[in-house]
Amino acid sequence: MSYKEIDPLRVPVKIDELVEQAYKELKPFFEPESIAVIGASRDEWSIGWVVFKNLAENYKNKKLKARIYGVNVKGGELFGYKLYKSIMDIPDSIDHAVIVVPAKFVLDVVEECGKKGVKALTIISAGFSEIGNTELENKVIETARKYGMRIIGPNCLGVFDNFGGVDTLFTPEFKKYYDQMLLTSPRPKPGVIMFGSQSGALGLAILDALYGADIGIAKFVSYGNKADVDETDLLLWSLKDPYVDVIMLYIEGIKKAGRLFVEVAKEVSKKKPIVVLKGGRTQAGARAAESHTGSLAGDYKMYIAAFKKIGAVVVETLDEFIDTVKAFSTQPPARGYNLAIITDGGGAGLLAADAAEKYGLIVNPPSDELLARLKDGVNRGYIVPFATFANPIDITGSATDESFVYALEAVLDDKNTDSVMIIGLHHVPGVTDQLPKKLVEVIEEKDTNKPVAFCTVGGADYAVRFRKSFEEAGIPTYPTPERAALVLKNLADYGSWLASLGLYESYIKEWKERQKLRKSSESH
Amino acid sequence: MSYKEIDPLRVPVKIDELVEQAYKELKPFFEPESIAVIGASRDEWSIGWVVFKNLAENYKNKKLKARIYGVNVKGGELFGYKLYKSIMDIPDSIDHAVIVVPAKFVLDVVEECGKKGVKALTIISAGFSEIGNTELENKVIETARKYGMRIIGPNCLGVFDNFGGVDTLFTPEFKKYYDQMLLTSPRPKPGVIMFGSQSGALGLAILDALYGADIGIAKFVSYGNKADVDETDLLLWSLKDPYVDVIMLYIEGIKKAGRLFVEVAKEVSKKKPIVVLKGGRTQAGARAAESHTGSLAGDYKMYIAAFKKIGAVVVETLDEFIDTVKAFSTQPPARGYNLAIITDGGGAGLLAADAAEKYGLIVNPPSDELLARLKDGVNRGYIVPFATFANPIDITGSATDESFVYALEAVLDDKNTDSVMIIGLHHVPGVTDQLPKKLVEVIEEKDTNKPVAFCTVGGADYAVRFRKSFEEAGIPTYPTPERAALVLKNLADYGSWLASLGLYESYIKEWKERQKLRKSSESH
Repeated sequence: MSYKEIDPLRVPVKIDELVEQAYKELKPFFEPESIAVIGASRDEWSIGWVVFKNLAENYKNKKLKARIYGVNVKGGELFGYKLYKSIMDIPDSIDHAVIVVPAKFVLDVVEECGKKGVKALTIISAGFSEIGNTELENKVIETARKYGMRIIGPNCLGVFDNFGGVDTLFTPEFKKYYDQMLLTSPRPKPGVIMFGSQSGALGLAILDALYGADIGIAKFVSYGNKADVDETDLLLWSLKDPYVDVIMLYIEGIKKAGRLFVEVAKEVSKKKPIVVLKGGRTQAGARAAESHTGSLAGDYKMYIAAFKKIGAVVVETLDEFIDTVKAFSTQPPARGYNLAIITDGGGAGLLAADAAEKYGLIVNPPSDELLARLKDGVNRGYIVPFATFANPIDITGSATDESFVYALEAVLDDKNTDSVMIIGLHHVPGVTDQLPKKLVEVIEEKDTNKPVAFCTVGGADYAVRFRKSFEEAGIPTYPTPERAALVLKNLADYGSWLASLGLYESYIKEWKERQKLRKSSESH
Repeated sequence: MSYKEIDPLRVPVKIDELVEQAYKELKPFFEPESIAVIGASRDEWSIGWVVFKNLAENYKNKKLKARIYGVNVKGGELFGYKLYKSIMDIPDSIDHAVIVVPAKFVLDVVEECGKKGVKALTIISAGFSEIGNTELENKVIETARKYGMRIIGPNCLGVFDNFGGVDTLFTPEFKKYYDQMLLTSPRPKPGVIMFGSQSGALGLAILDALYGADIGIAKFVSYGNKADVDETDLLLWSLKDPYVDVIMLYIEGIKKAGRLFVEVAKEVSKKKPIVVLKGGRTQAGARAAESHTGSLAGDYKMYIAAFKKIGAVVVETLDEFIDTVKAFSTQPPARGYNLAIITDGGGAGLLAADAAEKYGLIVNPPSDELLARLKDGVNRGYIVPFATFANPIDITGSATDESFVYALEAVLDDKNTDSVMIIGLHHVPGVTDQLPKKLVEVIEEKDTNKPVAFCTVGGADYAVRFRKSFEEAGIPTYPTPERAALVLKNLADYGSWLASLGLYESYIKEWKERQKLRKSSESH
């Protein structure tokens, strides 16, 4: 029996066992020893052509270790590979089959895959429950179950894995724009995010946005109709995956096994943040969700309550989705809600304070101790005398890199500060290209587990490059104070939830261990 | 007596008279026949050097028509111009004097300017009421009044005018970033926005963001301590200025003459939208405002109520500020709240519907008439059969440019639609580089005065270029559906307010006349 059939009301969830089982069952999707594309096609830019091409290229570049095979009823050859007329003809065992043939042929193909001993099926083909053809979908599932195969899809984009090299995204990377070919469906760089999306098209669009924001991901899974593999599976996988620190889910509805999802999410949340964007939150949205994926979007308030109880970070917009996973990719969660704002621009600091308070952060005036230390910074010449310390700590347009260093050291040492927003408007003459490096040195030396976000406003060259320098140094950046504030609030929500369960320290410890492990494996 | 001393409780505001007076009094700031920089300096990158350099360059490029003069007690020469030891020595009358000398010399300089017959003073120098030196500031004002001079500042950046060529922004345009010089303080291209900012630094940062978003402005005024010229003056000027369609204000507090501001804003709003970002909305923000500009931020709810009553569009974040003025720069306001969403991606459409409803737009299912027309589009092969028309009108990933054209024509003709959001995810194969042109043709042909906003999600080359094409064609674009929805809601708020006063039609008429006038003057 698959763990997916467990009723957590009757059988208590043993998370470790589930994780082990999921890891075993899903491994062929991400780390197959062999992979076959059924419907590999010689028609340029067809789905079967693109999928086979991507896999062949990844194999050639040694990103993909799996042996690859193409299957096409017409036979022939593609990119130097022989195309087999049936999967049965392949003189090798197959772990993962990617199916791109028309829906009417899928059931037969699945049966053959079962006989062949395939373990994992990615069914990209559309034409199932999403157009009312639930009967066919159910038959496909039954057949897969009979042979113990797991399914991603149907009606999906499948898997993009930055580490294992599996890539079934069938959209061409480039597209014609007048006389140029422009990057239209980019793959983000390697990173620590597992991204699961119920919508394939929106998933692709978000990958495009992640790429634009230079945010890395470990894996992307588009599970389409989620006839089998769904969010719960990805959570179980992510819990163990040493490459994953953050889970990012776009959900329209939790159709089946909602209880298992909740039980699993509750456990996963204790170790890794789950950031959720839920489509179908309003009447109009719910109506749209039903037309889109046949999901009953349900009562959003009920969802929110359930999500928040299990420590999930629920976001409201695409910007917040992307901004938040960026922060979680490099920053620890905040132990509480007390925010210190350091700024070289009074107006920007003011907007930051407004937004932070509105979102639920606490922007208190500094304690006597912190105030004394800041004033000492004035006496010692680090900060100008007309700076104001109301929080925002406004070190003014006369600030230098050293003013920022001094103020950051002070708030990191302050026991009443849980997180820090640094607004370093680059227009200020004393702010230089050395600031990112200097601030990172302070953060690393202090090692306080207080998250830091950086903001400068602007869209011309200097602003863009300056933000990039901070990103490269591991500090998430935002183009407005409000966006930085919202992200810091999300880090505080999650950190407070962990702390309320007494799990904050263990979370930090494990997170750092994974970071260390990855660093050491990179250097080998 | 200046119109600024009018108490609208005692003297009814006659807006036309005020406008004429303001136009006459402020003209020397924006369109002087001669301009002098007092404190023009040979120290490279000093304030007096940068300001004089910018003006000299604009004169050379013929952007600035005014004759320019430099004044420096030491005399000498700068960029080929003689530096006069006193303004009195200049053998020409001076309309506008830009003062950059230290605060302690300002009063004498102002007295001299008065004797010389100067009409407008931009006092960039700091060291007045913002550091408690209110006495000096009052003396400066008194002296200026005595001679009938108007003052921008002190403690400000002054004026940047894309049409008249006056530019007193003293921040260097470029700044060193390792071995490169990068654009750090860009001037936005010419456009239809008057931007007034109480904060100089934030104003500069917003100019940087406007530049990055490729949004044009007519004028920027940083009025610092606003000892004299303030928001009210800019509103009066803007009402008449044929280059201005949109007024953008960053305000921390309305210290003085609040009643006159309200009376004037109420009248200006009827002709041109006033988009306001108010800093100091929360306790923390208000505390910061007091330290920053000495403003009593006041009760935000009271402000909001007052602003909304006069039809001002009050925004909550920097992103919304910029997104909104972009839309108002090219789009008419919406007559009502009914939004039609056309999308080639179900998930993105769903997020749009969620956001639109949350923000207060109405996302109703289509009327029978519209539905019949959309279905006819399916019959005629423009739209695929599995499209769904719940609103979002989801023309699916099989959409072509022609599907968008058909759907847009249908909703523009629909009497229950007030505004349109088009989501054209460029990842969809049938969407091409021709879409912007085709959609603009539809909009121009239908000429319905329904605002249209475009969204595609993504940050790689194609997304960026595609959005740029729409912008160039005059359709505002947004990288997320939520941001497009918020902007369309703001257009609906303003349009409904106009309509409630019976002013919608006259607004549209005048707006179009100004557009036509500008186009014809461009072609001369």
